[in-house]
Amino acid sequence: MQKKLILITNDDGYNSNGINELIKIARSFGDVLVVAPDGARSAQSSALTVALPVTYTEISNREHFRIIACSGTPADCVKLVFSKQLPGIERDPDIVLSGINHGSNASINVIYSGTMGAAIEGALYHKSSIGFSLCNHDNDADFSKTLPFFSKIIEHVIANGLPKGVCLNVNAPVGEILGMKVCRQSLGSWRNEFMASPTPYNKDCYWMVGEFINDEPEATDTDEWALTNGFISIQPVQTDMTDYMAIKKLNFDNQNTIFNA
Amino acid sequence: MQKKLILITNDDGYNSNGINELIKIARSFGDVLVVAPDGARSAQSSALTVALPVTYTEISNREHFRIIACSGTPADCVKLVFSKQLPGIERDPDIVLSGINHGSNASINVIYSGTMGAAIEGALYHKSSIGFSLCNHDNDADFSKTLPFFSKIIEHVIANGLPKGVCLNVNAPVGEILGMKVCRQSLGSWRNEFMASPTPYNKDCYWMVGEFINDEPEATDTDEWALTNGFISIQPVQTDMTDYMAIKKLNFDNQNTIFNA
Repeated sequence: MQKKLILITNDDGYNSNGINELIKIARSFGDVLVVAPDGARSAQSSALTVALPVTYTEISNREHFRIIACSGTPADCVKLVFSKQLPGIERDPDIVLSGINHGSNASINVIYSGTMGAAIEGALYHKSSIGFSLCNHDNDADFSKTLPFFSKIIEHVIANGLPKGVCLNVNAPVGEILGMKVCRQSLGSWRNEFMASPTPYNKDCYWMVGEFINDEPEATDTDEWALTNGFISIQPVQTDMTDYMAIKKLNFDNQNTIFNA
Repeated sequence: MQKKLILITNDDGYNSNGINELIKIARSFGDVLVVAPDGARSAQSSALTVALPVTYTEISNREHFRIIACSGTPADCVKLVFSKQLPGIERDPDIVLSGINHGSNASINVIYSGTMGAAIEGALYHKSSIGFSLCNHDNDADFSKTLPFFSKIIEHVIANGLPKGVCLNVNAPVGEILGMKVCRQSLGSWRNEFMASPTPYNKDCYWMVGEFINDEPEATDTDEWALTNGFISIQPVQTDMTDYMAIKKLNFDNQNTIFNA
């Protein structure tokens, strides 16, 4: 049987510590193709590069293990691989792994996350896709405690697949890990999101900063609860953004039409 | 009673034709504050600017109508307004409108859309938010037929609100409009997504192009069906990306835990 081809990408850049840890555990499951941004692309969500072309640099090309750096976003990286335009890429990856991100992508941060933008992209190509994050922004964060758990998740997903159109948003707490929980996305919000800073032009500019707030600290079925209590959170993320409950609420004339023409 | 404050943004830039059409109809509902990108930000999804500060330029500041151009993404624009850091912005907008986008944001394009990134951001601040698009990429597209319908949607949403955490993705077909339909997101995919183009460096670069395919042309409850058949599509979009069905499927040991520690 042909070995699995595992695509790995991230939003911190191809040479970040987090992606190197993910590569280490992924190589035991198959051939690894890394196509990742050539530098930091944090908070790029599912953004695509449309005004400029995407370029690439071959970093290394060994048997069973190739690394390509890409000028684009995490989602661009996934698209570029599935388009099979790059020299020597002739088959679709079997699974898409993204991360390990330096920093949490739990709660509403899944919406902004470039790590998850890549995982969502993999799901749109009907491949099992997982985004991994550790709740620690440091460059030299200690990923070691997460690795046995992340390996188990990859093994499970390779063996069982995922529901169609669904990818996983996996976040790990800092410190000892008690286990893993399948969770929903917590309601959350950001406060004090910008730091004003002087410019030479008689007005301020604004740096994104902010504090994240878990808006439902009492709930025990959320990703934020899991992380606060020492568990890895596993959120199944859908690529169908339709709110089906809201469809029913908006259809008040039972004609699937709000207004007549 | 204080007049409604309507925030308008988009992803084509503050001086595009589409946003000017939206401003025209919005002004009949209240005071209009435009904070929109200073140029094209297509396919920016919910991307945020984190590596650089966001800057702004005051374009005009008349009574009941102010325009600010921003260096950031559509989502940045919304965040900047709700942070109330900009001079003279002291209250939260009551409603967030984004568009009118030059081009469709139906089906999976909702995931990549900067127009919808801004609408999702408004929903995260618990405000009624709507993204509007016309299925025509031309700069000089004719928006006139959409305006009476889009006005009705805005009027309806101001009067009735939207379910919590939900915004609307509204797309209009080109040509005569027969009515409006509340729809789900069609399954869809992009093919031939890149055009290879020579570089001076003995390798190609890749421009994003591609053809969109509706992957369920038989279904009659989708946004793509509505648009193909002359209807405006109204998709309720959720900010909770959790797939609750998948939570049940993944919980196979009924312990809300895939694996033990």
